[in-house]
Amino acid sequence: MSLPQFLFVCTTTPTTTRHPMEETEEYLPSASNSITVRVVISNRPGMLAKVTSVIGEHGGNIGAIDIVRAEKDELTRDITINTRSDDHAESIVQALRDLDGVEVVNISDRTFLLHLGGKVEVESKSPLRTRDQLSMAYTPGVARVCEAIHETPEDTHRLTIKSNTVAVVSDGTAVLGLGDIGSGAALPVMEGKAQLLKEFANVNGFPICLDTTDVDEIVNTVRRIAPVFGGINLEDIAAPRCFAVEERLKDELDIPVFHDDQHGTAVVTAAALLNALKIVEKDLDEIKVVTVGIGAAGTAVTEMFMEMGVENIVGVDSHGPVTPERDDLNDAKRQYAEMTDPSVTGDTLSAVMEGADVFIGLSVPDILDVEDLNRMARDPIVFAMANPRPEIMPEVAYPHVAVMATGRSDYPNQINNVLCFPGLFKGALDCRAKGITSEMKIAAAEAIANAIDDQSLTPDYIIPSVFDENVVAQVSSAVSQTAQKQGLARKRT
Amino acid sequence: MSLPQFLFVCTTTPTTTRHPMEETEEYLPSASNSITVRVVISNRPGMLAKVTSVIGEHGGNIGAIDIVRAEKDELTRDITINTRSDDHAESIVQALRDLDGVEVVNISDRTFLLHLGGKVEVESKSPLRTRDQLSMAYTPGVARVCEAIHETPEDTHRLTIKSNTVAVVSDGTAVLGLGDIGSGAALPVMEGKAQLLKEFANVNGFPICLDTTDVDEIVNTVRRIAPVFGGINLEDIAAPRCFAVEERLKDELDIPVFHDDQHGTAVVTAAALLNALKIVEKDLDEIKVVTVGIGAAGTAVTEMFMEMGVENIVGVDSHGPVTPERDDLNDAKRQYAEMTDPSVTGDTLSAVMEGADVFIGLSVPDILDVEDLNRMARDPIVFAMANPRPEIMPEVAYPHVAVMATGRSDYPNQINNVLCFPGLFKGALDCRAKGITSEMKIAAAEAIANAIDDQSLTPDYIIPSVFDENVVAQVSSAVSQTAQKQGLARKRT
Repeated sequence: MSLPQFLFVCTTTPTTTRHPMEETEEYLPSASNSITVRVVISNRPGMLAKVTSVIGEHGGNIGAIDIVRAEKDELTRDITINTRSDDHAESIVQALRDLDGVEVVNISDRTFLLHLGGKVEVESKSPLRTRDQLSMAYTPGVARVCEAIHETPEDTHRLTIKSNTVAVVSDGTAVLGLGDIGSGAALPVMEGKAQLLKEFANVNGFPICLDTTDVDEIVNTVRRIAPVFGGINLEDIAAPRCFAVEERLKDELDIPVFHDDQHGTAVVTAAALLNALKIVEKDLDEIKVVTVGIGAAGTAVTEMFMEMGVENIVGVDSHGPVTPERDDLNDAKRQYAEMTDPSVTGDTLSAVMEGADVFIGLSVPDILDVEDLNRMARDPIVFAMANPRPEIMPEVAYPHVAVMATGRSDYPNQINNVLCFPGLFKGALDCRAKGITSEMKIAAAEAIANAIDDQSLTPDYIIPSVFDENVVAQVSSAVSQTAQKQGLARKRT
Repeated sequence: MSLPQFLFVCTTTPTTTRHPMEETEEYLPSASNSITVRVVISNRPGMLAKVTSVIGEHGGNIGAIDIVRAEKDELTRDITINTRSDDHAESIVQALRDLDGVEVVNISDRTFLLHLGGKVEVESKSPLRTRDQLSMAYTPGVARVCEAIHETPEDTHRLTIKSNTVAVVSDGTAVLGLGDIGSGAALPVMEGKAQLLKEFANVNGFPICLDTTDVDEIVNTVRRIAPVFGGINLEDIAAPRCFAVEERLKDELDIPVFHDDQHGTAVVTAAALLNALKIVEKDLDEIKVVTVGIGAAGTAVTEMFMEMGVENIVGVDSHGPVTPERDDLNDAKRQYAEMTDPSVTGDTLSAVMEGADVFIGLSVPDILDVEDLNRMARDPIVFAMANPRPEIMPEVAYPHVAVMATGRSDYPNQINNVLCFPGLFKGALDCRAKGITSEMKIAAAEAIANAIDDQSLTPDYIIPSVFDENVVAQVSSAVSQTAQKQGLARKRT
């Protein structure tokens, strides 16, 4: 028997800064880091208890125990264990190896097994098993469909996959919190996005990972492959390049272009804000918002809040409040400063927190403390979305705030983009929308907020679950209706 | 009740020149042109017979008759009718309308119905219904897979859809026999190709229709989206542009690039030749081949025949034999003339047919007559692949030839690319081949030829059926083994 080995070992140290929307529970054993260990155990009383005790003592959570083979002297079992990390998994396996009467014969990483061969596939919608079937789907019958589209080009929206297909496009430069890892390494994330589009909204997503990081080349490439797609979801493209790419593609294409890291985050954060304001009984036009982290997401959140009627927003970056007076701002931040034009006294986060109604964190862990919270206006609203560790931990903040949300799935009120993009694209495709407008995004935010009725709304439940099946239907309907009202739909739904 | 109308009517007159490989049976009623007519018929004896008689008298073939609703006075039925053309379908419907006691309430075109919403879809290979599933396929678990690929880029071939996915790329300039109809109108063909890849070889195909016809732009676009794909199938790109696009992409990419119109046709034609030569007992190095039609396919067939050992090939275009002496040749044809360097007496097709063993037609209908056949050497082999009407009709040629093949499915020996590309790409993907070589193409041709054993081989059965399930397995195995022998495989199979 060959030596047992980790089938897939990744030795790269995970980076500590993470995508704001990424759910990371690195501190708890989780299925995302689970292994299945095949062990041969001597067949005598108490042995399984020994094995499970050792796993528990080393901090592993046992998910399942299966019998593979039972013989007179020994039992072969598969034990699935949730762990915290690769190192943690290795320490558990080592502990099992050290047990008398236990032989570890194989270890497989369930996450890697799931990814083998990719996570999506292209299926034929009709069988091709007879000559008649072939003659309708392919030659000669297909020629009549081609001719019809040649004559009426808009029929691609009806007679091809363009009707229900979105490209998930990345250049691999800002993937999750991993940074610029390249287009090939970004592919598993884009495949995951394609899975979510199908599983949540029955929309076809196809991953397009680009072997270029040049704005012109990205724009030209996407423009040239656009005939196949009814929408473009930009993903994990680094700022400030992502702004130019999105703007130019919106100009040049007649289909929706949506940078999820910006606008998906903005829509879901806006939905959370709408419900939080209901709880504290404040209006959009009277609140003061402090936004920390002025990257792609922070900028989009700010723009969307202003479009919804928020008048007083102060942006803060690692050097302090982003004001027109600063002389160290890049173009994007200068525009931000001019757009928000905040009246600020003091040049620290703590100073601008004075009297704030809402804190939006899309930055780094632990930058907020209880004193900052106590400087806020009555009934503070805190959305601390740094991941995996928020700007302030919920257990610290709870006594001092009215409503708290994070990007994590292990606390209440998870602000997760999955609530937005599947329904948004479904709605846009359903009505063959030519683009995504602010009004459509606001409609999506309201639909997400309204998925929780007023009776159910509590400080711990301002955001619906990602598994709430009503959300997609309500978001898509709202987006589609709004597109039709705005004259941007090519089809009535 | 609204007036019955054709749901989909295409009024463009079909062009008469067709892609050589397209199966077109325009002269017979076929499923590719079938309609389902909903009629309300008075419920009295003999009425259905009247209806079916009228359809038969007007040349329609009835496929199915279903009852939709039965009432006291009338029956509603759906009648599926294979027709020859849109005009023919309309004439049948008109005849039904003229019948007393029959009301036509709806007509649907089955081919267009099949195309509604597109013919392929992107499916998730794993469910995303629980938080654990989400955490393995998407965040946070996916980050570990991304990091592993970042560290070992070749793992994209294992951990993503690159392992089993081919782009079906067209610029829409030479679609079937329809010509330059544009990228949107080409999409149904590329979707059909994607269906064939999945249904025949379990390979994911995804259609990429390009909004450009510029060689540089096509090359750059495909190169930039290549990270997602394990192979590139070029399709329906006009000559001579297709030659440059393929050559450059082969140079720049480390995955197989295959222009099916050239090399798919060449492989299947070569397979047919190998079996035809067994029947007439001649060797490759002793035969004289006349190839008519020196476009993309004719050139590729000639090149492949020469690589297999054919020494005497005469190309013929609409101006006569393609020889180095001609001063009216474009670059591609000049290269062709120099490559074949034929010794020719006379400047007509009839003259070069003198003593030919094999005729390869990839040109236009009816250019060959019985006298030409009689000028050929003993046991003539004629592959007349112009579509829908061959260079000479089989019934005319049969008394004068030993072996006859066409591109049509309604005669024996259909030379159809579907026999090649699914298995070829499967084989290349299975071993992670870096490219497609002449040797791999020849191995594919031999595998197709050998799918018919010597006992079964007859003049009417030199090519296996497109539905012969052994072909894909044998082609893929031959291609994969050859790639491994040539050191072009990244994985042992």
